[in-house]
Amino acid sequence: MPKVGLVLSGCGYLDGSEIQETVITLLALDRHGATVLCMAPNIDQMHVIDHTTGEPMSGEKRNVLLEAARIVRGQIKDIKDVSANDFDALIFPGGYGAAQNLSDFAVKGGDCSVNQDVERLIKETLEAHKPLGMICISPVVISKIHKGSSKKLKLTIGTDKDTANALIGMGTDHIDCPVKEHVVDKENKIVSSPAYMFGQSRISEVAEGIEKTVQEVLGLI
Amino acid sequence: MPKVGLVLSGCGYLDGSEIQETVITLLALDRHGATVLCMAPNIDQMHVIDHTTGEPMSGEKRNVLLEAARIVRGQIKDIKDVSANDFDALIFPGGYGAAQNLSDFAVKGGDCSVNQDVERLIKETLEAHKPLGMICISPVVISKIHKGSSKKLKLTIGTDKDTANALIGMGTDHIDCPVKEHVVDKENKIVSSPAYMFGQSRISEVAEGIEKTVQEVLGLI
Repeated sequence: MPKVGLVLSGCGYLDGSEIQETVITLLALDRHGATVLCMAPNIDQMHVIDHTTGEPMSGEKRNVLLEAARIVRGQIKDIKDVSANDFDALIFPGGYGAAQNLSDFAVKGGDCSVNQDVERLIKETLEAHKPLGMICISPVVISKIHKGSSKKLKLTIGTDKDTANALIGMGTDHIDCPVKEHVVDKENKIVSSPAYMFGQSRISEVAEGIEKTVQEVLGLI
Repeated sequence: MPKVGLVLSGCGYLDGSEIQETVITLLALDRHGATVLCMAPNIDQMHVIDHTTGEPMSGEKRNVLLEAARIVRGQIKDIKDVSANDFDALIFPGGYGAAQNLSDFAVKGGDCSVNQDVERLIKETLEAHKPLGMICISPVVISKIHKGSSKKLKLTIGTDKDTANALIGMGTDHIDCPVKEHVVDKENKIVSSPAYMFGQSRISEVAEGIEKTVQEVLGLI
């Protein structure tokens, strides 16, 4: 039974993990017989967003780990206590939390920095040649970490020009990809799918791309 | 294309809607070609629970509608602005929010009261002979509203004795049911499935019961 790590960044697409992407990933993994190890950094969120207006809620403060725990019914670890020895593959759902809490890409673009435990774990996973799944906006995180390496990564964030250009600026090959599909970087064992980077998609379209990603990641173990 | 109302109660199984049940319902509805109208009461949550410890977070205050909006990417209405004319069927995912925010069943059991807009909408739906889907703990809400009526409801909350006895005390026929299955009350057009009332279930088992419930509800339209 493969064991898959899932890195969360909060609870809600505007300031944390994209909830639907996360649940679809959990369901696809379970249907393939994989067990899941969920984790998140034990840090404050960059901000808290009112999901009816898209505006910040002034004075609100929330913790990434505690909020992420809502999606996974409390079954979650502090990412600082996890190493690549603990799983066979690692998947990042999307949501702006990947660009606000796991990194500061939302503020600094290609000049962003990445949470040090997230960076350590991705490096360990790459060095162990274990596969990674990067959904939605999360490819920016691994692209930044890999910046300057001789082996190019091949990733997709869909067709959004600004984000694609930021990836290209960090030395990544960006491949345009529709919501129902995924991109496989066989050499580096990284699978990506744009999911709600296409914000107007139907949930069933997002699910199709994520289910293909999960199946491909499991096949690369 | 059928239109289905979805009544949410927050975001997180210990103080709001069960997130996984909600997303599985959204996905099943979309895969059947149904459109969804999500709604929640615009009220404060009974409390806010730390989902890593199960303990209340003192001093925290959250709004049911704003938190529920996280699950559905902001596409949500205040339930007071919705009538049974706006949909062909109505589904309630579970989570303690149904027993804490939509009603006070968690505190008062069979003597609970139900949020007045939730009560109004369920009564309108029953009167219009439109089908209802009640997942997890949510059967307590409709059981309370129907209390004292001559027509008995037939519902399940799984096999939990205390909750089943509370339903029976409110005049409902309770049918034991495993997580992957559902119970159909054809006369009253109500379908129920226990889902995470079996708290140790796998997400794929919960999904199986909910997918059957959604299909049955759509068939009753």
